[in-house]
Amino acid sequence: MTHDSLRRRVGHIIFETTTPAARTFDVVLLWVILLSVLAAVLESVSSLEARWGETLRGLEWGFTVAFTIEYLLRIYSAKDRRRYIFSYFGLVDLLAVLPTYLSLVVPGAQYALVLRSLRLLRVFRILKLAHFLDDADLLVRAMRASREKILVFLFAVMTIVLITGTAMYLIEGPANGFDNIPLSVYWAIVTVTTVGFGDLTPLTPVGRFLASMLMITGYAIIAVPTGIVTTELGLASRSRPNRGLACSRCGAGGHTDEANYCYSCGERLNRESVPKVRLQ
Amino acid sequence: MTHDSLRRRVGHIIFETTTPAARTFDVVLLWVILLSVLAAVLESVSSLEARWGETLRGLEWGFTVAFTIEYLLRIYSAKDRRRYIFSYFGLVDLLAVLPTYLSLVVPGAQYALVLRSLRLLRVFRILKLAHFLDDADLLVRAMRASREKILVFLFAVMTIVLITGTAMYLIEGPANGFDNIPLSVYWAIVTVTTVGFGDLTPLTPVGRFLASMLMITGYAIIAVPTGIVTTELGLASRSRPNRGLACSRCGAGGHTDEANYCYSCGERLNRESVPKVRLQ
Amino acid sequence: MTHDSLRRRVGHIIFETTTPAARTFDVVLLWVILLSVLAAVLESVSSLEARWGETLRGLEWGFTVAFTIEYLLRIYSAKDRRRYIFSYFGLVDLLAVLPTYLSLVVPGAQYALVLRSLRLLRVFRILKLAHFLDDADLLVRAMRASREKILVFLFAVMTIVLITGTAMYLIEGPANGFDNIPLSVYWAIVTVTTVGFGDLTPLTPVGRFLASMLMITGYAIIAVPTGIVTTELGLASRSRPNRGLACSRCGAGGHTDEANYCYSCGERLNRESVPKVRLQ
Amino acid sequence: MTHDSLRRRVGHIIFETTTPAARTFDVVLLWVILLSVLAAVLESVSSLEARWGETLRGLEWGFTVAFTIEYLLRIYSAKDRRRYIFSYFGLVDLLAVLPTYLSLVVPGAQYALVLRSLRLLRVFRILKLAHFLDDADLLVRAMRASREKILVFLFAVMTIVLITGTAMYLIEGPANGFDNIPLSVYWAIVTVTTVGFGDLTPLTPVGRFLASMLMITGYAIIAVPTGIVTTELGLASRSRPNRGLACSRCGAGGHTDEANYCYSCGERLNRESVPKVRLQ
Repeated sequence: MTHDSLRRRVGHIIFETTTPAARTFDVVLLWVILLSVLAAVLESVSSLEARWGETLRGLEWGFTVAFTIEYLLRIYSAKDRRRYIFSYFGLVDLLAVLPTYLSLVVPGAQYALVLRSLRLLRVFRILKLAHFLDDADLLVRAMRASREKILVFLFAVMTIVLITGTAMYLIEGPANGFDNIPLSVYWAIVTVTTVGFGDLTPLTPVGRFLASMLMITGYAIIAVPTGIVTTELGLASRSRPNRGLACSRCGAGGHTDEANYCYSCGERLNRESVPKVRLQ
Repeated sequence: MTHDSLRRRVGHIIFETTTPAARTFDVVLLWVILLSVLAAVLESVSSLEARWGETLRGLEWGFTVAFTIEYLLRIYSAKDRRRYIFSYFGLVDLLAVLPTYLSLVVPGAQYALVLRSLRLLRVFRILKLAHFLDDADLLVRAMRASREKILVFLFAVMTIVLITGTAMYLIEGPANGFDNIPLSVYWAIVTVTTVGFGDLTPLTPVGRFLASMLMITGYAIIAVPTGIVTTELGLASRSRPNRGLACSRCGAGGHTDEANYCYSCGERLNRESVPKVRLQ
Repeated sequence: MTHDSLRRRVGHIIFETTTPAARTFDVVLLWVILLSVLAAVLESVSSLEARWGETLRGLEWGFTVAFTIEYLLRIYSAKDRRRYIFSYFGLVDLLAVLPTYLSLVVPGAQYALVLRSLRLLRVFRILKLAHFLDDADLLVRAMRASREKILVFLFAVMTIVLITGTAMYLIEGPANGFDNIPLSVYWAIVTVTTVGFGDLTPLTPVGRFLASMLMITGYAIIAVPTGIVTTELGLASRSRPNRGLACSRCGAGGHTDEANYCYSCGERLNRESVPKVRLQ
Repeated sequence: MTHDSLRRRVGHIIFETTTPAARTFDVVLLWVILLSVLAAVLESVSSLEARWGETLRGLEWGFTVAFTIEYLLRIYSAKDRRRYIFSYFGLVDLLAVLPTYLSLVVPGAQYALVLRSLRLLRVFRILKLAHFLDDADLLVRAMRASREKILVFLFAVMTIVLITGTAMYLIEGPANGFDNIPLSVYWAIVTVTTVGFGDLTPLTPVGRFLASMLMITGYAIIAVPTGIVTTELGLASRSRPNRGLACSRCGAGGHTDEANYCYSCGERLNRESVPKVRLQ
C-alpha cells in the first residue's frame, strides 16, 4: 500500500461514515467520549475519588492518549491540514487533550475539569455524520431567521430586569437581603424567568406587589420567543422541498394542496396518479 | 351454551366495547383500578395505616383476587393466547397482580407499592376502547415525527447542563454546597428547566452571573420544543383526510363550514350527499 | 308611565348596554364589584382590620344592600324570571349577597370570605355585554375543540406524577421528608409543573437523578398543550369569516389567497377591485 | 457655514444614521449609555463604593454633563422643538439628566438610582435608527392584535388567583404563614406563574391538594397566551406583502425559492425582473 493510499484510507475511516469500518469507528469514538466525560464527572465525587482515584486518573490518561493519537491521525489524513487545525472541530479536538498535558506542568489542574467536559461537543460531529442533524438544520435556520427579533426581545427583558431590580433595591433594601443592584437584578432574572429559587424574596407589601407584576410579565412574555420560533419553523418547514405532492415529470415535491401546476417545470400536476409523499 | 361460544362471549365483554355488557364491564374496571391505586396511596399515610391498615390490606387482597380472575379470563378468552400474554397490556395486567403475591414470599414488600401504582397504566386500554385516544393519536404521530429534533434538542440541553454544572463546581465549590460535579449538574438541570428548588443556590457574584445566563437560556430555549411540536401538529392536522368538505367535481378539499361553492372550480358543493366529517 | 313600561325600562338599563344610561350602570356596577372585593381583601389584614374594621364592615353592608337591590330589580325586570334565577349569572348574583346575611345567623362567618371573592365572577357579565369576550369566544372554541386531547394529556401527567411520586417515597423515604405517597405525589406535581417550591427536595443521588428526569419531562411536555391550543387557535381563526378577500357580489369574506371563486355564491373573485379586509 | 446649515448638519448627525459621522455618533452614544448605567449599578455595591466611590461619582457627573450637552443639541437642531421636547424620547432624554441635578438640591438622592436605570430606554432609539426594530414591529402588531384576548386572559388569571388565595387563607391560616388575603394572593401568583419561591408553602393536606390544582392550572393555561401570540404572528407574517415571488401573469404570490413556474397558472416566473424580497 502506498503512503498516499494509506492516508486516504485513514481519512476515509476517520472523517466519513459510508463504510462499515468508518461507522464502527464512529460508534467506538462516541462511547469513548461519553466514558471520558463520565470519568471526569465521577472523579469530582470525593467518596469515589478516595476509593477509585488511581483507576480514574489512569483511565483519564488512557483516554487522553487515545484522543491524542486520533488527533494526530486526523492531522495526518486531512485533505487540507491547516484548514482542519483551525476549524471549529479541529480546535475542539485539541482542547480535548491539551488540559491533561497542561496539568503536568501547571498547578491548579482542577480547572482542566471544565475543559474536559467540553469533550461532549465532539459528539456533535458524530451526530452530523450520522445525518442526525439534518432536521436540526431546519431548527438552526429558524433560529437564525428570528435572530434579530430574539435579540430585541432579550434586550427588552434586560431593560425590564434592570429597572425592576433597581426599584426592588430601593423598596426592600439591604435590610431584607437586597444588598445591592447587581444582586437585585439577579433576583429579578430569577423571578422573570419563573425559576424562583427563593434564596431572596420580597418581604414588604410594595415589594411583593412589584414582584407579582414581574412574575405575571415573565409568565406572559414567554409567549413571545415561543411564537417567534414556531412561526419561523412553520415558514421554514413549508418551504422545504419533498413535502406534499411531487411532480410526475421533474419530481419536484412540496406542492401545496391548491397547486395545479408544478412550480419547477410547469407540468400540470396529476393528483390521481402521484402518491403523496410520507409526511415526515 | 357450548364451550366455544362461552369463550367468544367472555372475550367480547372483556376485550371489546360494543355491547352494553362490555361497556358496563369497562366502567366497573375503570373504577376498580382507580380505587385500588387510591388504596395503595392511602396505605402509605401512617396515621391512616394505623387506623384502617387491616381494612386497606383486606381491600388490596380483594382487588388482587379480582384482577387475577380478570387476568385468567383474558388468557382464557383471548383469540391468540401467546400474543396476549406477551403483549404490552398483557404484561401490564400481570404486573398488576404479581407484586401482591410476591409480598407473601419475599420480605421488603414495600417495593410492591411502585408496581401497584403501575396499575394506572391499565386505564389507557379503557381510554383506547372508548375511542378517547383517537385524537391523542395525532399527538403521538406529531411527537414521533419530531423525535429526532427533540433528541438533538435534549442532547444539546444535556451538553449545556454538563458544561455549566462543571463550571459552577469550580466557581462555587464545596464551600457553597456544590460538593461535586453530579450535584452541580443536578443544580443546572433544576435551573435550566426553571424549576428552581432553591436547595442549592450560587453565592458568589461570578456564580450568580453564570446562573443568570443559564436561566435566560432555559427561558428562551423552551421555545424550541414548543415550536417543533406545534409545527408538526399543524402539519399533521392539515394532512388529515376529509377535513372539511371536498368538491365533487374538482376534488379540492378543506372547504369551511360557510362554503357553498368550490373555491377552485366554482362547482356548487353538495352538502346533502357528502357527509361532513366532525371537525374535532 | 305604566307598570309594564317601567319594568321594560329597568330591564333595558340592567340587562343591556345600548343606551347611555345602561352603559353608565355597567361602569358603576364594575367599580362597585371591584371595590367590594377590595374591601373583603383588606378586611383580612389584621393591622388594617384593627384600625378600619368598623368602616370596612359598614362598607360591606352597604355593598350587600346595593347588590340585594340590584338582584331584586333583576328578578323584577327579567323577561323570564324563573330562567334568570336558575341561570349561571342568576346564581352568581345570589351568591354575592347570601353569605353576608348568613353571617348574621351562622357563626364562623369567616367562610363567607371565599364566597365574597366569587363576586369577581360577576365582572364577566359586564365584559360580555361590552363585547369584550367576542374574541375570547374564539379561545373558548379552541379550548373546547382540544378538550379531549387536553384531558388525555392531563391523565398522562397524572400517571407520570403518581408513579414517580411512589418511587420517590421508596427512594427518599420519611427520613428525607417524603413521609407518604400523597406528599410525594404533591412534590412530583410541584416538580413536573416547574414550580419548584423547594420545601421538599431529594437528598439521595438516586432521588436526584429521578428528579432530574422528572424535571426534563415537565420542561419538554409543556410543549404539548401549547402545541394543541396553538394548532386549534390557528384552525379556528382560519375558519373565521371576514378575513382575507371579500366577494364583490355577496360580500362573503375570508377567501384564501389561492381562491378563484367565491365559496358562498360562486362568483369569480375580482382581485383588483376588492379591497383587502383589515387584518384584525 | 451659516447658522442654519450648522443646525441642519448637527441634526443630521444626531437624529439620523445615514452618514458615517451619524453612525459613529450612535455607536459612541450606545456605549456611553451602557457605561453610565453600569456605573449606577456598581455604585450600589458597598465594597466597590467604599473604594471607587469618588471615581464613580466623578464619572456620573461626566455622563450627566455629556447627556446634557446632547439634550441641548437635540433641542437646538430639532426641526420642531416643541414636538421633540414633549415626545416620548424627548422626555426620556430629560429624565436621563434631571435626577443627577436634583440630587444636589433634594436630600434622599438614592431615589435617583431608579431614574438613572431608565437611561437604558434611550438605547431603543438607537436600535430603531439601526432598523433593528423593523422586525420587532411585526411583534408589536401581533401583540396589539391580540391585546383584548390577552387582557381577558389576564383578568381570568386574576380571578383564579384571588379566589384560590382567599381559599388558601381560610385553609392554611395565619398559623401556617398565610397571614392575610393579600399575602395569600401573592402566594397564588407565585404558584400559578410556576415561579415557586417557597417562602410560603401549604402544610395541610387540603391546602396541598388545592395548591396542586393551581399548579396544574398554571402549567396548562400558559398554552393560552402562547397560542394567541403564535397565531397572530403567523397571520401577521402571512399577510406581509411580497413574501416570496409573485407571478407576473396571474399574480399568485408566495412562491418558494425553488419555484420556477407559477403554481396557479403555470407561467414561467421571472426571477430577474421581479426583485426578491429578503425573507427576514
